[in-house]
Amino acid sequence: VVSGAVSELTPSEREVFSPRELKHGWRLACQTYPQSDCVLNIPAESLTTAQRTQVEGVAVTVPPTPVVTGYPLELSPPSLADPQADADGLLKALNRQYKLNCQQIDLNALRRLSPQLRTDGWQCRAMVRGDEVIAVNPPSGRNLGLAIDLGTTKIAGYLVDLEDGRTLAAQGTMNPQISYGEDIISRLNRVIKTPGESARMQQLVTKAFNQLATELCAEAATRPEEIGDVVVVGNTVMHHLWLGLPVNQLACPPFVPATSLAVDVKARDLGLNIAPGAYVHLLPNIAGYVGADHLAMLLATGIWRDRGTTLALDIGTNTEVSLVCNGRIATASCASGPAFEGGHIKYGMRAASGAIERLRLVNGTVQYQTIEDAPPVGICGSGILDTVAQLYLAGIIDEGGRMKKGHSLITTSRKQREFIVVSPAERAGQSPITVTQMDIRELQLAKAAIRAGIQALLEASNCAETDIKKVIIAGAFGSYIDVSSAITIGMLPSLPLKRFRQVGNAAGAGARLALISWHKRAEARTIARRIRYIELAGAPGFDQTFVQASYLGQYRITNGNRITQE
Amino acid sequence: VVSGAVSELTPSEREVFSPRELKHGWRLACQTYPQSDCVLNIPAESLTTAQRTQVEGVAVTVPPTPVVTGYPLELSPPSLADPQADADGLLKALNRQYKLNCQQIDLNALRRLSPQLRTDGWQCRAMVRGDEVIAVNPPSGRNLGLAIDLGTTKIAGYLVDLEDGRTLAAQGTMNPQISYGEDIISRLNRVIKTPGESARMQQLVTKAFNQLATELCAEAATRPEEIGDVVVVGNTVMHHLWLGLPVNQLACPPFVPATSLAVDVKARDLGLNIAPGAYVHLLPNIAGYVGADHLAMLLATGIWRDRGTTLALDIGTNTEVSLVCNGRIATASCASGPAFEGGHIKYGMRAASGAIERLRLVNGTVQYQTIEDAPPVGICGSGILDTVAQLYLAGIIDEGGRMKKGHSLITTSRKQREFIVVSPAERAGQSPITVTQMDIRELQLAKAAIRAGIQALLEASNCAETDIKKVIIAGAFGSYIDVSSAITIGMLPSLPLKRFRQVGNAAGAGARLALISWHKRAEARTIARRIRYIELAGAPGFDQTFVQASYLGQYRITNGNRITQE
Repeated sequence: VVSGAVSELTPSEREVFSPRELKHGWRLACQTYPQSDCVLNIPAESLTTAQRTQVEGVAVTVPPTPVVTGYPLELSPPSLADPQADADGLLKALNRQYKLNCQQIDLNALRRLSPQLRTDGWQCRAMVRGDEVIAVNPPSGRNLGLAIDLGTTKIAGYLVDLEDGRTLAAQGTMNPQISYGEDIISRLNRVIKTPGESARMQQLVTKAFNQLATELCAEAATRPEEIGDVVVVGNTVMHHLWLGLPVNQLACPPFVPATSLAVDVKARDLGLNIAPGAYVHLLPNIAGYVGADHLAMLLATGIWRDRGTTLALDIGTNTEVSLVCNGRIATASCASGPAFEGGHIKYGMRAASGAIERLRLVNGTVQYQTIEDAPPVGICGSGILDTVAQLYLAGIIDEGGRMKKGHSLITTSRKQREFIVVSPAERAGQSPITVTQMDIRELQLAKAAIRAGIQALLEASNCAETDIKKVIIAGAFGSYIDVSSAITIGMLPSLPLKRFRQVGNAAGAGARLALISWHKRAEARTIARRIRYIELAGAPGFDQTFVQASYLGQYRITNGNRITQE
Repeated sequence: VVSGAVSELTPSEREVFSPRELKHGWRLACQTYPQSDCVLNIPAESLTTAQRTQVEGVAVTVPPTPVVTGYPLELSPPSLADPQADADGLLKALNRQYKLNCQQIDLNALRRLSPQLRTDGWQCRAMVRGDEVIAVNPPSGRNLGLAIDLGTTKIAGYLVDLEDGRTLAAQGTMNPQISYGEDIISRLNRVIKTPGESARMQQLVTKAFNQLATELCAEAATRPEEIGDVVVVGNTVMHHLWLGLPVNQLACPPFVPATSLAVDVKARDLGLNIAPGAYVHLLPNIAGYVGADHLAMLLATGIWRDRGTTLALDIGTNTEVSLVCNGRIATASCASGPAFEGGHIKYGMRAASGAIERLRLVNGTVQYQTIEDAPPVGICGSGILDTVAQLYLAGIIDEGGRMKKGHSLITTSRKQREFIVVSPAERAGQSPITVTQMDIRELQLAKAAIRAGIQALLEASNCAETDIKKVIIAGAFGSYIDVSSAITIGMLPSLPLKRFRQVGNAAGAGARLALISWHKRAEARTIARRIRYIELAGAPGFDQTFVQASYLGQYRITNGNRITQE
């Protein structure tokens, strides 16, 4: 607050700000009411900037065998001599001409049929799914599909031509439910405490989907009515909230979903405005905290068929890990927390413009890179990972994660040590950007959760770390991390770098594969059936493994013991 | 209007009322606005009285093979060691225990599943239709169905126990669309002129159905959520208006329905509040003016299997006629008009309390019987039929339908002759109840349409009248007419009385059969496929036959010539 009268300081604000910050007029926007005209200075890092969303992932190449097929028809108009009903004539011609056995027309499609046939001169394109006509398009109509990766933070949408499998347009947007909490746990709590919010959260996502469909169609010069099929993947909580399924049982042990099965439901039952009788297909979930997005990644990368041992991770607030070993798949969910997304980190932020995403210590000097080369405003997950790795390699922190005092880049403020990433001098007198001792503890918890999860899967599958021939790192965060930093801090097993592969948004690629090909849709069900879900909360010795996994450095863990490597 | 100031007479009122009526203060309620406090005298015949609705028809006895089956289940709750999703556990237990192959649970049912299983101690009754669980009931839940005969005027509903086939409750109500016009043509016109009314008319019927379901369930001490299946039959216009299908093409040649096929649609898509995933089944239509109600009659009476020649009629504003002959079925629709329902008849009224439903001339004296033995307020269809037959037999009208002057019961007013049924003296000085020359002309048009339709079917089937071994007369009006009167005026062929059978509401019985038994549902499709629809508008020589068929008396028609019988 530069000038003007505002309400009294609240206890929360006294808690959050230092006396110096308070003296400089820092206030929380959520706690302060203006009492006159005011002049405010809003720091750059508080401004919402578009988050970097990633829509490109592994390549999507599969022969198109879409679930919906379009059949052009030319019908004879009815006459007094042959007063055949419109739908009857359509089905008769369709079944005869294409040797099908269609028995029904979706009610919404039927509602449009009679005037449409008369307008289009008895020519049309019947869109068929199984034994049902789900839409009747004009003769020039296209056969389009929409694949959606519904993330907790981001939604990625892909408009696909179902006849040749090409992606016509791709776009990312924020998940509007974010106003109900950044992570799935806060959204779960919100719905459990206020069940009425459930419908509102469902509608928000539906609205975002409809908006995405409209924008993608505009980009490809078509209309959402030409979208005859949709595949959605997301984590189990997003899946349940969108379908309007109960979530209470997800929030307490044994954390079970209402359903893990693939769901096919009319798009209209979920409020999507696309082809009149179109369905939405949701790939199977695996468990309460391993969703269809992880399954889609396994589908897209094809690693579930690997003969050797393969590890695959989706890193985020919740990290899903699968270990493919001897034709079997074991999967676990690791509560890695929000540190990788900048949460619970003093200067942490999402991967948006101005976030420090890379950091090196060169001869005692900090060198960093920000997203879009903007002036630094904070540090995102990959930046924190790099920082901790560099501090460990430089000997500034020990393997327990403790900052050593006395280093020129270490300062002590508010009772904890901090590593100065950007000094006030570099920020024109604004506060510095630092990584604190507590930030390092947060990162240790996050990476320990992942490492211990990997370890539990190895043990459950009777495999050793060194058996792992391939490591797939998926998801937006996973694509941007420096793998060697992740190995340095012991987040990932110490394996040759060439065994690692960062595949980007593989969930979106999996969704597109399931959209284009019903073989892939069937394959997804096969994968789901093969997966053995390992509940870490109940795994013996997990706590001890977790403690060992919180150490920095390169090591192996065997029977809960950490063996540091040379 | 007894006293008080009202608005000026409108041209319509001057048209409708005689000078004497106007002098006595007669006004049309729809044309008159009060301009002060008024005292009004509302004649008894203007008061809405409950119309006699008929819910009993032919017997419904068929071994129950319902489309929905209930399976009791006892499930194991999930645990950390076996964290199986709720739906997965349910389907697995269901398929294993009952050797089924259910693959999906309706979304609405799924939305309730998790809390319900936890409340009911993991016991339930899965309601299965095909490969889909449409509802999960408490263990004590019942398996109920609802059959509805959706008439233009009346709606008859039957609540059926699908396990033993018993009808638990039956009830009739008025079709609330009647506020949009009494007959289908006025409702069609309304929708065509004001397309927005279509949704409103759909909602009115849905509301009536929901109300009917609630009342039937209250009578049977159950809840609408236990209704897992619905069968609806009605004429094609009622069918289309309820489904929200376009009707423009029904209103002009060649008068084709949007669909003639059986329709299966989720009850929620039509706004019915019953079991979460229940479907509604609508039996096939036959043509624009021959609906599923006629098909249901053919199903209920079983006459479509007759080896001999059988004639079946549903008499109403529109009369549907089928002729079964040598294993083939020919069907036509006759535009018989509103006379049988009291429309276009001076003192005509529906079959409600106080309607004269039977009339005899005994030694020149009128003897009549009213519904519920109430004081007479008008004449319903069967009463008019009797009157014309009696006048013809008494020689008061000739075979052309002309009233002879000079008879003591004939008066002349407003330029036409009238037969006095109830004199002012008998009505405490109120106006008399009469049948006018124009009323007789209306009846002649109505009965000629039916007789000419029968004739056209006989010709199309190469049958003679005398071949007809059985005549089925269905529908509410048909059950109350005096068959010998109908033969006397030449509405029905002159055949021995014992060949006639009045079966009441056979459409409702057919709906119940299709509800209880999927064999009967399949049979309905078979009948629909076998029917040859004869469009009378295009039939050669139909106009000449119609003229001959308008004569009173007993005769045959051959090649458009009327041969009076001895």
